Amino acid sequence: MGILVVGSVALDTVKTPFGEVEEALGGSATYFSVAASYFTDVSMVAVVGQDFPEKHINFLKTRKIDLNGLQKAPGKTFRWAGYYDYDLNRANTLKTELNVFETFSPELPGEYKDAEFVFLANIDPVLQRAVLDQINRPRLIAADTMNYWIENKKAELIETLKRVDILTINEAEVRELAGEPNLIKAARSILSLGPKVLIVKRGEYGVLMFNGGSVFSAPAYPLESVFDPTGAGDTFAGGFMGYVASVRDWTDGGLRKALVMGSVMASFNVEDFSLGRIKSLDYKEIETRFRGFKRLAQFEDL
Amino acid sequence: MGILVVGSVALDTVKTPFGEVEEALGGSATYFSVAASYFTDVSMVAVVGQDFPEKHINFLKTRKIDLNGLQKAPGKTFRWAGYYDYDLNRANTLKTELNVFETFSPELPGEYKDAEFVFLANIDPVLQRAVLDQINRPRLIAADTMNYWIENKKAELIETLKRVDILTINEAEVRELAGEPNLIKAARSILSLGPKVLIVKRGEYGVLMFNGGSVFSAPAYPLESVFDPTGAGDTFAGGFMGYVASVRDWTDGGLRKALVMGSVMASFNVEDFSLGRIKSLDYKEIETRFRGFKRLAQFEDL
Repeated sequence: MGILVVGSVALDTVKTPFGEVEEALGGSATYFSVAASYFTDVSMVAVVGQDFPEKHINFLKTRKIDLNGLQKAPGKTFRWAGYYDYDLNRANTLKTELNVFETFSPELPGEYKDAEFVFLANIDPVLQRAVLDQINRPRLIAADTMNYWIENKKAELIETLKRVDILTINEAEVRELAGEPNLIKAARSILSLGPKVLIVKRGEYGVLMFNGGSVFSAPAYPLESVFDPTGAGDTFAGGFMGYVASVRDWTDGGLRKALVMGSVMASFNVEDFSLGRIKSLDYKEIETRFRGFKRLAQFEDL
Repeated sequence: MGILVVGSVALDTVKTPFGEVEEALGGSATYFSVAASYFTDVSMVAVVGQDFPEKHINFLKTRKIDLNGLQKAPGKTFRWAGYYDYDLNRANTLKTELNVFETFSPELPGEYKDAEFVFLANIDPVLQRAVLDQINRPRLIAADTMNYWIENKKAELIETLKRVDILTINEAEVRELAGEPNLIKAARSILSLGPKVLIVKRGEYGVLMFNGGSVFSAPAYPLESVFDPTGAGDTFAGGFMGYVASVRDWTDGGLRKALVMGSVMASFNVEDFSLGRIKSLDYKEIETRFRGFKRLAQFEDL
């Protein structure tokens, strides 16, 4: 099997200066899975409530996402509501209703135990470990987290990090987790906690990857129309892991291309609300934008 | 002759979390000239007071900077005092004493009239035009400005921009000058005012260049020790223009290499207070760091 992702499936109500959506399909596992589905098979472990619209299930099936690990629990689906001002780097939360997500306990169908590639989206680090305990010997484990877990479950998070190969977090979280304002020193400190690779997400400034002694900086794509950044980080992770799993190249050069592929998918995602732009991409569009990133970053030797 | 720069020479008192200096050599024309001096001849048009230490004059002469256009006026030299917190992207001004700079009127020695490359550092846009009026037919005119002129002399600034080939300003200034929050739209709007090339300085996030339809993103160099960002923008411009003037290549590919060279020089500058790091670089160090930028930004095609 391809990639296993554990995370949230949500109904998002989002407002930006450019429009709004109500109870649109969202959640970290959703964005990740849809982005990764362009490159490889994806199996999703998550939970929804009894009110979860059947049309979303049908859509995820059109992307050939394996939903055997998607639990349906009594109660309502996880809901998030928030808004963005012109500074689209910063989400303002209006409402978080955990609902069925509050008691979520990931249980993996038997056939998932041989997953080779695992992405632990931003959930309680204890649950992230509970997932790893149910898997035999994954080749590559990537994980995300957030300031809430750094502040409230740091010891548990550090336990989880010991088992993670690739950590993808944003810039402020890197500084907070390491307790160090200089990003480069903070990155080195995090690499000493377990992960071999640290990917630093910087929103409209792109992505930095620390891989042992190598540092790679990928730009963000200059877009005239950014409508909604919700899910950009998970879409990035989906493109990144999906590409790695499909080409099976985890050399530094391979990871660099995968990082750009993640950035490609994230750049599409922010061009529309919810999954509007990434729900039905053409692979040619993806290749064309990858070449756009190449032109954007390219310069000759002296 | 090589490059003509007009701007300020200052005595800076700067405090950062990593140390402080008092009345150290600074000013836009100083940083620019020293950076450019590694690549080509530079002539400086600026003003100092009678209190300006002779040791600074001697230092500038060791960099072979032509000081025939450096006026010595009755009164005191321009002084700036400020501090930076851990967010080194943001300077906090404590004191600005314009002194002799208040009545500065750039007068070019006769031999400067044939300058081929001109950099108008951040001064009153009226004075920037007064410099251009004294020059015959420069091949390339680059200019910097700041929020103060955008807010207080916008019409004059727009007059100056009509005569400028390359504008180098920071990200917030791009948005403010264009009155548009989206950076890409703002850049296009500024390119319609006259400049053929817009260079957007983004501090620790690197530099973006808009050159007609081409966009280039250069990363910033990941540094473990950033001591003082004062002068980074002018050092960048000095490396950029110095390299352009030395290789005489203003194709898009040539400007991209020059942009990286500017970033190389700026990355050295922030590693020490005042001109501590860039006062005596070895050209080999410069080449080595250029290759470091190449490794930092490099990825393969699909």
